[in-house]
Amino acid sequence: MVYALRRPVVGLLSDFGLKDPYVVEMKAVILSICKDAQIIDVSHEIEKFNVRMGAFVLASAVSYFPKGTVCVAVVDPDVGTRRRPIVVETKRSLLVGPDNGLLTLATEKEEIKHVYEIGNTAFMLPRVSKTFHGRDVFAPAAAYLATGRLPSEAGSKVDDYFIPKYAKPTIEDNALAGEVLHIDDFDNIITNVSEKNLNTINAKQDVPLLVKLERKVLRPRYCSTYGEVDANELLAVIGGHGFLEIAVNRSNAASKLKARVGMNVRIAKA
Amino acid sequence: MVYALRRPVVGLLSDFGLKDPYVVEMKAVILSICKDAQIIDVSHEIEKFNVRMGAFVLASAVSYFPKGTVCVAVVDPDVGTRRRPIVVETKRSLLVGPDNGLLTLATEKEEIKHVYEIGNTAFMLPRVSKTFHGRDVFAPAAAYLATGRLPSEAGSKVDDYFIPKYAKPTIEDNALAGEVLHIDDFDNIITNVSEKNLNTINAKQDVPLLVKLERKVLRPRYCSTYGEVDANELLAVIGGHGFLEIAVNRSNAASKLKARVGMNVRIAKA
Amino acid sequence: MVYALRRPVVGLLSDFGLKDPYVVEMKAVILSICKDAQIIDVSHEIEKFNVRMGAFVLASAVSYFPKGTVCVAVVDPDVGTRRRPIVVETKRSLLVGPDNGLLTLATEKEEIKHVYEIGNTAFMLPRVSKTFHGRDVFAPAAAYLATGRLPSEAGSKVDDYFIPKYAKPTIEDNALAGEVLHIDDFDNIITNVSEKNLNTINAKQDVPLLVKLERKVLRPRYCSTYGEVDANELLAVIGGHGFLEIAVNRSNAASKLKARVGMNVRIAKA
Repeated sequence: MVYALRRPVVGLLSDFGLKDPYVVEMKAVILSICKDAQIIDVSHEIEKFNVRMGAFVLASAVSYFPKGTVCVAVVDPDVGTRRRPIVVETKRSLLVGPDNGLLTLATEKEEIKHVYEIGNTAFMLPRVSKTFHGRDVFAPAAAYLATGRLPSEAGSKVDDYFIPKYAKPTIEDNALAGEVLHIDDFDNIITNVSEKNLNTINAKQDVPLLVKLERKVLRPRYCSTYGEVDANELLAVIGGHGFLEIAVNRSNAASKLKARVGMNVRIAKA
Repeated sequence: MVYALRRPVVGLLSDFGLKDPYVVEMKAVILSICKDAQIIDVSHEIEKFNVRMGAFVLASAVSYFPKGTVCVAVVDPDVGTRRRPIVVETKRSLLVGPDNGLLTLATEKEEIKHVYEIGNTAFMLPRVSKTFHGRDVFAPAAAYLATGRLPSEAGSKVDDYFIPKYAKPTIEDNALAGEVLHIDDFDNIITNVSEKNLNTINAKQDVPLLVKLERKVLRPRYCSTYGEVDANELLAVIGGHGFLEIAVNRSNAASKLKARVGMNVRIAKA
Repeated sequence: MVYALRRPVVGLLSDFGLKDPYVVEMKAVILSICKDAQIIDVSHEIEKFNVRMGAFVLASAVSYFPKGTVCVAVVDPDVGTRRRPIVVETKRSLLVGPDNGLLTLATEKEEIKHVYEIGNTAFMLPRVSKTFHGRDVFAPAAAYLATGRLPSEAGSKVDDYFIPKYAKPTIEDNALAGEVLHIDDFDNIITNVSEKNLNTINAKQDVPLLVKLERKVLRPRYCSTYGEVDANELLAVIGGHGFLEIAVNRSNAASKLKARVGMNVRIAKA
C-alpha cells in the first residue's frame, strides 16, 4: 500500500459544527505538517456526542475515497480521559480517531490489518491540551501519516480496541425486525434493513410493504425511486447506501411520522 | 478550449445539506477519478427540490470561475425517472446535472455550444443506484471531463433540452413589475429587477423609490450601499449581482416585511 | 518571509453563511487569479455584523496556519462607505479585510510589521460593486498576494488603523472580573479569563470555583477536561484556546444558564 500519495487526501469528520474555529484549526495543523494534503470534509454536522451517527456517516463515505486516504474522525465525549487515540490500518485506508467505536463500521467494511495506539509524541503537537485532541493529537497524527510516515510509528499495537454492538436486523415470523439508523437532511427515515435482508423475506418491488414503526402501521409501496409515487405520497425505497428508507416524495417523512433514530421497525410483505 | 487544466476546478452545488454523507461521497468519487481536482463548494444549502433557487445561485457563481471549470449541480427531485442527465458545453465551462432547468440560467450567461445526454456507462460508476445519481452519474461524469475527456464522449447530442420560463420583469405605466427572486442569508430581498431595468424608468439614486411588495407599499431610499442609511432603516440598493434588493440596514428585511420568494414586486419612482 | 508558497494557503472568514453564492464567488475569484491556491474556510457562520466574534475566531485559527498564509476576513457592515480596505503584514502571515477591528486580535498575536490601504486598482476586479467588496476588493487582493505580489504594492502605508478596545479581565478583591467572549456550538460559555489570569488568584484544579455570571452564583468544579464530571454536571475547564469555559458535561451550558456574549463574569476561589 502506498500511503504517500502525490497529493494525499485527508477526510475530516467531527461533531464540531462550522461556526467555531475548531475545524479550521485541525485543517491548519494538517496543512502545516503536510502541505500537499487535499482536505475533504466528510461532515461536521454529526449530532454532538453521537458516536453511532458519526460511525454511520464515516462508513458510508469511506469506500468512495481513493485508496491510501487518511480519515480523521472526532466525536469524542471522553476527550482527555483514558480512552485511547488510535490509528486503524485497513487494506485501503488509514483511520484516525478515539477508540470509542466511531471508526468501527468504516473499518469493518475495509478489512482491518492493524490497530495502533497513538503514543509517540512526535505525532502530536508540542503542547497537547486536555480538551481538544482533534487539533493536538488526531490532526497531526493524520498529517504525519499523509506525508508517508508508517502507522506503526504512531505507537504500540492494540489488540483490544473497542467494538460496539451496533444492532443488525433479525428475522422473526417472516418479518424483519430492525431499527431506524439515521434520519437524513431530506427527512428520509433510513433503517438498518438492507436490500439483501429484504430478499430473504421475498419482498417484491412495486407492491406495498407492511411497515410497523413503533406502533404506527404503514403500507408504503416498495419503489425503485422517489418519483414513482406522487408528491406527498409515502414510499419505501432502497437508498444510495443499500438500506431501506421510508420516505414521502418531496416531503418530510420523519417529521410526519414522528420518527427518531433508534426506533424499532418491523417489515413484512403486505 | 482547454478542458484539462493542470489542477482542474470542479464546482459542486446541491440541495443535500452538509450533515449527511451525500456531498462527501460525490467529492470522494471525483477525487478517485481525477486526483488533481480542486473541488469548490458552490452551495449545498439550496432549499430541497428548489430548482429555481439552485439555478439562480449557480448562475451567480459560474462566471467568476476560471475558464475550463466543470460545475456539477444536483437539485433533482425526479432522480431515477426519465429526466435526462446532461452535460452542457459553453464557451467558458462545462456544466453537469439533470435536464430540469437547473443549469439554464448559468448556461444562458455563458453561451451554449452543445448539450449531450450522459449515456456512456464508462462515464458512470460501475453500479448506478436509482436514488443517487449525484454520486453515481453526475460526479463521475464531471470528474472524467475534468481529466480532459471530451463532452461528446459522454453521450449523444441533445437538441430539445428543457428550458424553463423564469420570469423577467415587465414595464407597465412607467413602473416595473417583477418578483422576489431570492432571500439571502442576510434576509435581504433580492428582486429580478436589474439596474438596467431601473434605468428605463429613470430611477435616480439618493431619492426614494415607490415599492409595492404584494399589498405593502414601501418608500425605501435608493442607495448605493447599505451604510448610507442608519441601522434598522429601509433601503433599496443594487446588490453584488446587479439586481435591486430591498434591505434593512444591519437587520432583517424579509422577516420584517414577511417577504417570500415568488412574491410580486412593483417598482416606480416615488 | 516567503509569500509565494508552492501551493499558497488562503484562509477565508465571513458572516455570509453557506447558502448564497457569496462565498463561492470569492473562492472563484481567488482561483481565477491564483490557480494553485489552497482555500481553507475559517468560518462563514460568524454572526451577521459581529466584528468581535469574527475577530475572536480569526485570532484563534491564525497561529495554526503555515507561515506565509494569506487570510481574508469579511465582516463588513460599512461596506462601500469610508472605512478602508487594508492588508496587514505580520511576521508570519498576511491578513486582508476591512479596517474595522476584525483583524486586530489576530494581528496582535502575530506581531504587526506594516499596514497598507488597498488602493491599487490592479489588486481589485475591473468592476467594483459598492455592496460586495469581499468579492471585488478583498478576494482579488488576497489572491494577488498569494501569487507573491508584495503587500506594499497594494497601496500606501497606513499608520492610524483602527484598534478596538476588546475587554481584558481585571483583578478586584482577589477575584477576576471578565466577560463572556463566545458561546460555541457545544453551547460552552467561553470567557476572556485565561489560565494565566486564574493563576494570579491561585485557583487550583479539582476544587470548585466561585463563578458569578451576571446575578447567577455557580460553584463549578475546576477540571482539566469535560469527562471528569458526570454527564449533565457543571464544570469549569481551560478550553483549547487557553480560556476558562463554563460547561455542562455532554449538555448545553449557555442555554441552561441563559448566558450571552458580553455578560459579566466574576471568578474567585470558592
